[in-house]
Amino acid sequence: KINPDRLWDSLMEMAQIGPGVAGGNNRQTLTDEDAEGRALFQKWCEAAGCTMGLDQMGNMFAQRDGTDPDALPVYVGSHLDTQPTGGKYDGVLGVLGGLEILRTMNDLGIKTKHPVVVTNWTNEEGTRYAPAMLSSGVFAGIHTQDWAYDRTDAKGLAFGDELNRIGWRGDEEVGARKMHAFFELHIEQGPILEAEGKDIGVVTHGQGLSWTQVTVTGKDAHTGSTPMPLRKNAGLGMARILEAVDEIACAHAPHAVGAAGHIDVYPNSRNVIPGKVVFTVDFRSPDLSVIEDMESQLRVKGQKIADDMGLEVEFEKVGGFDPVAFDEGCVTAVRSAAERLGYSHMDLISGAGHDACWINRVAPTAMVMCPCVDGLSHNEAEEITKDWAKAGADVLLHAVLETAEI
Amino acid sequence: KINPDRLWDSLMEMAQIGPGVAGGNNRQTLTDEDAEGRALFQKWCEAAGCTMGLDQMGNMFAQRDGTDPDALPVYVGSHLDTQPTGGKYDGVLGVLGGLEILRTMNDLGIKTKHPVVVTNWTNEEGTRYAPAMLSSGVFAGIHTQDWAYDRTDAKGLAFGDELNRIGWRGDEEVGARKMHAFFELHIEQGPILEAEGKDIGVVTHGQGLSWTQVTVTGKDAHTGSTPMPLRKNAGLGMARILEAVDEIACAHAPHAVGAAGHIDVYPNSRNVIPGKVVFTVDFRSPDLSVIEDMESQLRVKGQKIADDMGLEVEFEKVGGFDPVAFDEGCVTAVRSAAERLGYSHMDLISGAGHDACWINRVAPTAMVMCPCVDGLSHNEAEEITKDWAKAGADVLLHAVLETAEI
Ligand SMILES: NC(=O)NCCC(=O)O
Ligand SMILES: NC(=O)NCCC(=O)O
Repeated sequence: KINPDRLWDSLMEMAQIGPGVAGGNNRQTLTDEDAEGRALFQKWCEAAGCTMGLDQMGNMFAQRDGTDPDALPVYVGSHLDTQPTGGKYDGVLGVLGGLEILRTMNDLGIKTKHPVVVTNWTNEEGTRYAPAMLSSGVFAGIHTQDWAYDRTDAKGLAFGDELNRIGWRGDEEVGARKMHAFFELHIEQGPILEAEGKDIGVVTHGQGLSWTQVTVTGKDAHTGSTPMPLRKNAGLGMARILEAVDEIACAHAPHAVGAAGHIDVYPNSRNVIPGKVVFTVDFRSPDLSVIEDMESQLRVKGQKIADDMGLEVEFEKVGGFDPVAFDEGCVTAVRSAAERLGYSHMDLISGAGHDACWINRVAPTAMVMCPCVDGLSHNEAEEITKDWAKAGADVLLHAVLETAEI
Repeated sequence: KINPDRLWDSLMEMAQIGPGVAGGNNRQTLTDEDAEGRALFQKWCEAAGCTMGLDQMGNMFAQRDGTDPDALPVYVGSHLDTQPTGGKYDGVLGVLGGLEILRTMNDLGIKTKHPVVVTNWTNEEGTRYAPAMLSSGVFAGIHTQDWAYDRTDAKGLAFGDELNRIGWRGDEEVGARKMHAFFELHIEQGPILEAEGKDIGVVTHGQGLSWTQVTVTGKDAHTGSTPMPLRKNAGLGMARILEAVDEIACAHAPHAVGAAGHIDVYPNSRNVIPGKVVFTVDFRSPDLSVIEDMESQLRVKGQKIADDMGLEVEFEKVGGFDPVAFDEGCVTAVRSAAERLGYSHMDLISGAGHDACWINRVAPTAMVMCPCVDGLSHNEAEEITKDWAKAGADVLLHAVLETAEI
């Protein structure tokens, strides 16, 4: 079994880097804080006897060698970047839980046939650069590297330039590594495990996602002297489309969710009727046809709202992935590890997207989830217990040991 | 009569400073561009033989002396600051039209009993610092200077500090000047004059305004893994309140308008349900009781929307002024000037707020309006004709000459 205090201490030390304003973290991808977090992780990995690989997307790979030089490595890991007002565990638990299992294997002198590699995937969160899971996506051949490099943040800074600037662009070709299997430990980010009183979620599926960027164009005009009937208020158009998004998602409940987290209003002046609003609608479901239906309803209803108000509207898909079914063998390895260790568990569909969703395309993959308090995530108040972290890392260790062959 | 080409050339030269992205201007208050615009205005005033006064709010006063040293000056003017995506005439026409009448008086060797002073009032637009008409408001004793200095912009920079930084804080006590009368020339910013085919609007009243800053607080949470019934989506709450704002204003049509131009969403990340939205509702009417009724309906309906969704909501009044009735004598001076000069004219209620609305509290005041194309303002495409500018400045000249006594 892993050392829960050591794991917890590492989580808390990492959380010192890029502190938020309310107890959580703001360690967004490719910032100076991201670089500092990477350096600390590298230091820890080297102290644990690993060699560090770095690819051209900044993905990090800390390897503990196996006994068979020809055996493909078993990979574990997640991401160290956070939301602007993010928690201490989302992603971080999967990376440092991976490190903890290597440390435990060192403590116990365990030798595996397959090497075990801990990864930190670049830009999982997708806040600074859409889409989310960008670099595991390039690894899995979903996006090209050039396209990824050209993504820009709200200030217009390109991903490729910022990766260079923080000094974490490696030489390794992205996706060249072949994997025996990939396991990702992650907090649930939803309320089910806690409500059901289970220690472990055995993730069998992940729901799919669609991000549609909506641009509503009206006409900047004076809020005081422009008569109501002459207005082309893009802000009011946005409000009506947000209401439609909620209706569309609720109509597909409980197998769908929908909301807009990102909304930019132009020129954003108190006495100017908004001439333009850009916002991103996030629809998800475990059922691809539901996602497609919601997307097309958004376009139809949004167009009608705009037409009725004399506004222009454009829809652009800026991110998305299809629902995922994880590898049966890997899922079974997770479930039987939980069983063997005596942790209560249940099968789960991941509500969030994860690097594992892309890696599943190129390697047998599964996920281990542990509960989080009130299901709260993407919030600085995100919290887990040390026991939950321990259970998750224990199950990860045993699933890996079985797969990497002692 | 004034020299329309000279007026137009000055308007176009000022528009070179702080150009926008679409043919208009971004010369927001207390920016480097504002300082540059002020310096150009000062240079022109000095070339016209005026002495420049500067008060502690950065209000500028260019004086052409009269023949009677004891006679109070007649003031004219408006503002040189613009919206972030503003036009070339809103405010600027009133300042440079004021300068043009002094230049014309010089050309013709006209002597007046009363001095004539052209003002540039600081921060009329209210975009960078709420409320609008801040410095004419301090001049008129509506706000204290200390309170004004403490206003902060979106970056947290204080008005007083920025006024110092750009080097335009004067020594003069604000509001110490006594005025014989004040006349403001301004573009209509609405569609009535153009639709009615009139050259001149004789502004008898100004509608009142109320700015209420609304803060909706929900809970940041993951857009994917948070079940719909557990969400506290401040963005959706904002959308519903915006719809209510529109309903409230339309219910009072045609004597009321309402919209929100300023909307900030937090943390503004595509996969985070907004935990907080701050926006400002702008309600206006010529009838004070209508404004009060709309304000109270906003609070009642907004509270109900928030309660129904499990959100918190706070309302803070961040700006406002009561409807204005301008001075009968000054209004008559404007109307008879238009009449004498043979310009078509009509009485008008100003839809926008103006420095004249505050100065009316401390001096006999009136406004001259000229049409603008399609009634469009607070938009880079704001446009007027040289003939309209000429008619407005001619009427201003003759109203001033009558009041300042030749
Ligand atoms: N786990 C997680 O929050 N990933 C970000 C991508 C998503 O929005 O699901
Ligand atoms: N004239 C003008 O646009 N003033 C700004 C204050 C207002 O919003 O009415």
